[in-house]
Amino acid sequence: MPGFYIMTENPLSRTLTLKELAAMTGGRVCGDENVRVSNVAPVDRALPGELTFLSGAKNYAAHLESVKTTRAAALIAPEDAPELPLPSLRMKNPYMGLVKALNFFFPEEKPDYLVHPAAFVSEDAEVASNVVVGPHAVVEAGAVIGPGTRISAQAFLGRHCKIGQNTLIHPGARILAGCEVGDNCIIHANAVIGSDGFGFTLDAGVHVKVPQVGNVIVEDNVEIGACVTIDRATMETTRIGEGSKIDNMVHIAHNVQIGKKCVIVAQVGISGSTILEDYVTLAGQVGTVGHVRVGKGSTVAARGVVTSDVEAGSFVSGFPIKPHAEERKILAAMRKLPELLKKVRDLEKQLEAKESC
Amino acid sequence: MPGFYIMTENPLSRTLTLKELAAMTGGRVCGDENVRVSNVAPVDRALPGELTFLSGAKNYAAHLESVKTTRAAALIAPEDAPELPLPSLRMKNPYMGLVKALNFFFPEEKPDYLVHPAAFVSEDAEVASNVVVGPHAVVEAGAVIGPGTRISAQAFLGRHCKIGQNTLIHPGARILAGCEVGDNCIIHANAVIGSDGFGFTLDAGVHVKVPQVGNVIVEDNVEIGACVTIDRATMETTRIGEGSKIDNMVHIAHNVQIGKKCVIVAQVGISGSTILEDYVTLAGQVGTVGHVRVGKGSTVAARGVVTSDVEAGSFVSGFPIKPHAEERKILAAMRKLPELLKKVRDLEKQLEAKESC
Amino acid sequence: MPGFYIMTENPLSRTLTLKELAAMTGGRVCGDENVRVSNVAPVDRALPGELTFLSGAKNYAAHLESVKTTRAAALIAPEDAPELPLPSLRMKNPYMGLVKALNFFFPEEKPDYLVHPAAFVSEDAEVASNVVVGPHAVVEAGAVIGPGTRISAQAFLGRHCKIGQNTLIHPGARILAGCEVGDNCIIHANAVIGSDGFGFTLDAGVHVKVPQVGNVIVEDNVEIGACVTIDRATMETTRIGEGSKIDNMVHIAHNVQIGKKCVIVAQVGISGSTILEDYVTLAGQVGTVGHVRVGKGSTVAARGVVTSDVEAGSFVSGFPIKPHAEERKILAAMRKLPELLKKVRDLEKQLEAKESC
Repeated sequence: MPGFYIMTENPLSRTLTLKELAAMTGGRVCGDENVRVSNVAPVDRALPGELTFLSGAKNYAAHLESVKTTRAAALIAPEDAPELPLPSLRMKNPYMGLVKALNFFFPEEKPDYLVHPAAFVSEDAEVASNVVVGPHAVVEAGAVIGPGTRISAQAFLGRHCKIGQNTLIHPGARILAGCEVGDNCIIHANAVIGSDGFGFTLDAGVHVKVPQVGNVIVEDNVEIGACVTIDRATMETTRIGEGSKIDNMVHIAHNVQIGKKCVIVAQVGISGSTILEDYVTLAGQVGTVGHVRVGKGSTVAARGVVTSDVEAGSFVSGFPIKPHAEERKILAAMRKLPELLKKVRDLEKQLEAKESC
Repeated sequence: MPGFYIMTENPLSRTLTLKELAAMTGGRVCGDENVRVSNVAPVDRALPGELTFLSGAKNYAAHLESVKTTRAAALIAPEDAPELPLPSLRMKNPYMGLVKALNFFFPEEKPDYLVHPAAFVSEDAEVASNVVVGPHAVVEAGAVIGPGTRISAQAFLGRHCKIGQNTLIHPGARILAGCEVGDNCIIHANAVIGSDGFGFTLDAGVHVKVPQVGNVIVEDNVEIGACVTIDRATMETTRIGEGSKIDNMVHIAHNVQIGKKCVIVAQVGISGSTILEDYVTLAGQVGTVGHVRVGKGSTVAARGVVTSDVEAGSFVSGFPIKPHAEERKILAAMRKLPELLKKVRDLEKQLEAKESC
Repeated sequence: MPGFYIMTENPLSRTLTLKELAAMTGGRVCGDENVRVSNVAPVDRALPGELTFLSGAKNYAAHLESVKTTRAAALIAPEDAPELPLPSLRMKNPYMGLVKALNFFFPEEKPDYLVHPAAFVSEDAEVASNVVVGPHAVVEAGAVIGPGTRISAQAFLGRHCKIGQNTLIHPGARILAGCEVGDNCIIHANAVIGSDGFGFTLDAGVHVKVPQVGNVIVEDNVEIGACVTIDRATMETTRIGEGSKIDNMVHIAHNVQIGKKCVIVAQVGISGSTILEDYVTLAGQVGTVGHVRVGKGSTVAARGVVTSDVEAGSFVSGFPIKPHAEERKILAAMRKLPELLKKVRDLEKQLEAKESC
């Protein structure tokens, strides 16, 4: 949420030329480099004078077709796009052009306060001089907040937790006692970092709580979605590795170790002591049983259940987990199963008939 | 939560006669229309002098049986119910009678303040004169709140968001900057409207955030459950159509378009750019892949995964999605699969035996 | 979160001897009972002078091996563990020793305030004298809070709700109007207790809300995870039985009755009017359809969908639910399904060939 603006408003009336954009992004201009644009918008929605973009991705053919009728003044396009009817900036990754343009037209709006008078910040907290703390936020004793960081309204930092630099904590997020969040992180609204791990021992028919005295460490450049819950370790640390991105409503249990630059899509549940190596992707609604390891660069397709270790570089799916290609074959075969039952019954009858004759 | 009362208390000691109830609800009274009731309660729990109801739905036969022994003084019943041993109000939809009776006996309790002194409301917000804002709620600059609306304790309205008339925002709900909620909506506790869409572009091994500068628009008469998360669009608008009802812990990704009067049950996950047309029902724990369209009036059964477009009026289930009747056949056939394996092995042996003789 | 400490810190510099520990826990000391330990840590992480433990559970053989090289000074071990190279406390359930040691070394840190000046507590609430209420917490009129209970920062207690003794409500948890929480409970951050049940009646194409005027009762010794949502009953009570433990992000619908000492793992969804008898376990991501009963002591394996009543003492899994052993056979058989299709095709061909000759 770098800005809260609605796309078509372009609140600051900024403009830039393709040449200036190219200076920011790299890439090569085709056509009039002095064309000036006032906003960025999807190809079918762009108004006259606006910039649009042509991704190399989904529906590329359809997008190419739309370009013919767009009202936009200029275009960000893949390097190898065909000749286009309007000036374009050609880039290897046109999404990076979109990122730069969005950041230019919709810069983050800064609030007009630092520590808001309606915030509660303990006298025993260490807050860098330019930190923003919103109304009804709470920063407890011993908490440390690095420069440039923004603690939004109604967020909570528990005792002795540490937040790095240039991190953004959204409204209602809870960073509980003793947990750490690195630099350049984004923690979305109502996320919970540091809730107790779910650990009990059954003693005489009663579930006795095993105290959870560890913490959570979120490394630098991590983004954590709304209503995510990350449990503190029983002892030691539940860790979210550098650059990992976690979507909304993901549950991460105690003692989990998530590697660097992992991508975890919405509503995934990761059981205790699971290890994800670097660059692992878990698609939506995946689950893992506890104490498994998913190897570097592996992807688990949506709704899969990781029931055992996964080798590095795998693409797996299903429950239990198996190679994605195998799972697809099984799913296709299942649709033939009712017919198969009939066929086998027929075969049995034929054979019986043969026997009896 | 129109009242916070426990059923059997009937806090206001209100009473009404069947005749008066009929005037509120329509329907036809059978038996003494002057019988006076003091509360409404389930048929097996009603006390003497109370009203009860007989739905036309689940366990109808059992309910009919219970009526014989109920202590209630009167009954709301379906039009076509058999003769009953106590005075009754006959209605086409007896649930509507229950709704009216509950609203009569348990009217909403109004707090005794408008803007609570412990709330923070920006001077630059536009708040209609009879709006309630609870303690430790935050209303940021540029927010607009329509008449009759109630912002509960600890709720958050971000910059430039707009809330219509007679809407109820429960404690801890977050309506983030630039988002809009219509008239007569209910947003339950700790829901998040307007968190960032989950959008990244991989550049040199790093996931670079695509700024999410769009918003969410929740149209009129929508109810949104506790801990629901709705992501703002990358650009443009994520939209929840008029009259739709969303249960707890549903995740709705960026750019999703939900039609009018949809029903989305708990723990559903809707991926980016999915379109639900009007009157779509997604049962519990359903998932959708991105960029699919579910046609008007369709139902997806519990736990289904919408892997492709669904035609209007369909009833689908399973993963991948298929007609519900087919899915049921497959699930039934699966239980015969282990036996089938054996049968085929037997058939093979029989044939081999034949070959060799 | 009895302490917020990071394991290796041992903030209070407490020490104890094995003999003293044995006095606290029961069990039998083998070796030097006067060995003094200063902390408790996992076997591979313990520092010289620390206590460690050997559970009887997962990876027991590997743990036994690790004991040979641990730097720890002493060990909690199962009664029947082999001879060990360091002094040990032998217990039937060594986890109970760990619990006692963790509670000794990491006692709960008490805040230095009772009702924080930045809290809002209604004058019409009944708050026992030693209750802690954190900054920006809200306690509304008519709420009752028992002695020793702690309402953390930014938590919410609605009108007329009742909280027992020695209960801990974490930051941002919402106990809505009229709900009750017993003694010795823990309600984790951002959990919602008492949101409206999801009840509508379709009238002339419009979903009309059925007012939800019941409540939720959480009995004694219950733990409820972060971002859990428990809906109030339409009328009457949604109930969580004594000693039950609920993990993060579980959804419990209206009118559900959960028995005593149940264990419900993360991301489970329980539909309306479901009954769990005592000692039921639902593993992660389980769902239940409404109006079913799960018998005493039953376990539903991860991701299962309870589609019908489950007899007491069952171990079930899958969708639809079936005996776990059967489900495992089916899952195993499915991997042979593509091959089976081929085999049957071959059989058909062979038979055809036979026919034609």
